[in-house]
Amino acid sequence: MARDPILLTPGPTPVPPEIREVMSRPIPHHRTPEFQAVLKEVAAGLKRVFRTEQDVLILTSSGTGAMEAAVVNLLSPGETAFVIQGGKFGERWAEICRGYGIRVVPFNSPWGRPLDLNRASEEAAKDPSIRAVFSTLCETSTGVAYDIRGLRQAIGPKPLLVVDAISGLGVDPFEMDGWGVDAAVSGSQKGLMLPPGLAFIALSPRGWEAAERSGSPRYYFDLRLAREAWKEADTPFTPGISLIVGLAESLKRIQAGGLDQVLELNRRNAEAVRQAVKGLGLELYTDPSCASNGVTSVKVPAGIDGKELLKRLRKEEGIVLAGGQGKELAGKVFRIATMGAIGPEEIRAGLAALEKVLVQMGWKAPALK
Amino acid sequence: MARDPILLTPGPTPVPPEIREVMSRPIPHHRTPEFQAVLKEVAAGLKRVFRTEQDVLILTSSGTGAMEAAVVNLLSPGETAFVIQGGKFGERWAEICRGYGIRVVPFNSPWGRPLDLNRASEEAAKDPSIRAVFSTLCETSTGVAYDIRGLRQAIGPKPLLVVDAISGLGVDPFEMDGWGVDAAVSGSQKGLMLPPGLAFIALSPRGWEAAERSGSPRYYFDLRLAREAWKEADTPFTPGISLIVGLAESLKRIQAGGLDQVLELNRRNAEAVRQAVKGLGLELYTDPSCASNGVTSVKVPAGIDGKELLKRLRKEEGIVLAGGQGKELAGKVFRIATMGAIGPEEIRAGLAALEKVLVQMGWKAPALK
Repeated sequence: MARDPILLTPGPTPVPPEIREVMSRPIPHHRTPEFQAVLKEVAAGLKRVFRTEQDVLILTSSGTGAMEAAVVNLLSPGETAFVIQGGKFGERWAEICRGYGIRVVPFNSPWGRPLDLNRASEEAAKDPSIRAVFSTLCETSTGVAYDIRGLRQAIGPKPLLVVDAISGLGVDPFEMDGWGVDAAVSGSQKGLMLPPGLAFIALSPRGWEAAERSGSPRYYFDLRLAREAWKEADTPFTPGISLIVGLAESLKRIQAGGLDQVLELNRRNAEAVRQAVKGLGLELYTDPSCASNGVTSVKVPAGIDGKELLKRLRKEEGIVLAGGQGKELAGKVFRIATMGAIGPEEIRAGLAALEKVLVQMGWKAPALK
Repeated sequence: MARDPILLTPGPTPVPPEIREVMSRPIPHHRTPEFQAVLKEVAAGLKRVFRTEQDVLILTSSGTGAMEAAVVNLLSPGETAFVIQGGKFGERWAEICRGYGIRVVPFNSPWGRPLDLNRASEEAAKDPSIRAVFSTLCETSTGVAYDIRGLRQAIGPKPLLVVDAISGLGVDPFEMDGWGVDAAVSGSQKGLMLPPGLAFIALSPRGWEAAERSGSPRYYFDLRLAREAWKEADTPFTPGISLIVGLAESLKRIQAGGLDQVLELNRRNAEAVRQAVKGLGLELYTDPSCASNGVTSVKVPAGIDGKELLKRLRKEEGIVLAGGQGKELAGKVFRIATMGAIGPEEIRAGLAALEKVLVQMGWKAPALK
């Protein structure tokens, strides 16, 4: 390929050249007024993207690190978590909880389908020991955007509501304060257009009370340490400095047109992908009524080797799509991302290459029969 | 300042332009053969720098994350750790252990002084429940390089030996396998000349047995998950891709002249700093018999405001030195790093600026009296 590969993957997403440029400058020391000014700037920008008045703390880790931070700071061993499991990342909440001795009441939501709020409400009501409800905003493995506002109404005001917005933040609508979310986590390599390596977490006032009381062991992800340092525009441990410098640029870019505009562009791009994919005669995996703005799951058509399809797209066309995750979806779906800096041009190139390679592989679109 | 600031700090250290350049290229997806080739390359390079035959796993976190990984994978709640505390980072081992319910037997080693191996041997022998001994290689807060080989001899073969080589790796001599180290951890922003955001950990075969048995709760830092993924040139969670791309370049640079040459250059640079500082009439904080190749601690002379000194150096001269850490050393010492890409040119500029600012602040060198 003469050009660089085009990533249409739900993390990492392409990093715009101007963000790569600021990150390639000589590294500042983190304990200087210059860097503290950057931290204060990103602190304000992150609040706008999370739509919260609370501090959004930066952790140097993958998004999963912030998920662990949410679990260990909110719950103590033996407490009960109600976990919405409709894909790989919902299941991850359960794995982390179990790893820390927290009792899990799983709520299995059919993959690729909207959350059944009535059933969730009924199931959650059966167990008064439930202290926190865990969900994903955008379940990256399926492309479902869960109705977090509805989930809060369904479970009532009592349990803590914890949301994995790793691939949903800045992509699908999300209102941390407005929807009554007690802990929201995200990561750098999705809507924020950065390389992976930073994670973010914000807690509600109730979340902070839980963090003060939690009996779970923790150190690196102890948010009490992070909050203390944050007051002084600092972090308890040396942070991912270059990524934070890039984050300032990324947040400026989002702020320029406004978050609503970003969400609307993503929505339109995802809708365009869904229409185009259907136009090719392919079948969507995910119910369109709950489709995320950020990632579209498409069924691998019968007779086509899904792994070979992605390999050819990557090697021959320089288009990187994501495969299916977990034993349920590996080889059965592929995923096209429409988040972060992915725009119409990348999408058109990706869809044209997809059609070309499918036809080369002997596939006949139903519409062309 | 017309030029960029010169970092003479023990993390982050300056990132060479050629490493910044490779990190500024379009980001690859981590689940592609191209990136897996990079992972295999850095896997081999890290083994050479750790001087181990064992896998060196990459974690996406600060160095402290790898310290936590060592603690939770090797020890179970209620087990006993013998912790060499001769500075802020020795104390951190104790804090992490306590955070996870591990009993700590502290061994207080006077700050800035060599480890008393006879006393360490006696103290460790008193408590047969000691399962692991924790030390730092280079205690960044003081500039002491501990005698890890001697420590292994002093404690005998039985306890696990865990070493924080975060600022010592690639800077001070270190032989993981040769010295009988069971867990060694490091970070990206020191001798490896990268921005912060990656941590590294290697376990001995005995360390892996402990990891299989440990009853400590863990998920993000569960090294069993990391090792499983590593076998497939993968990581359990999305890694710090751009930093790993930079790491490949950094390891190539170290490999070009060989690790021994890097250690020798650092040693000469540190010796030059110590001589120059004494030549200025300043006093070294750390006993030269145990001085690290990577960082030199200097006493702030009487009558000089240490904080103001560093501020002027930064603002007026574009030279960033590190202050003293913790209540013991804040304002009482400053530290000059000689690790990673810091070379004679940066050191000369730093020392010239130091003398200039000291004189401006009214200081008279004893030799000039």
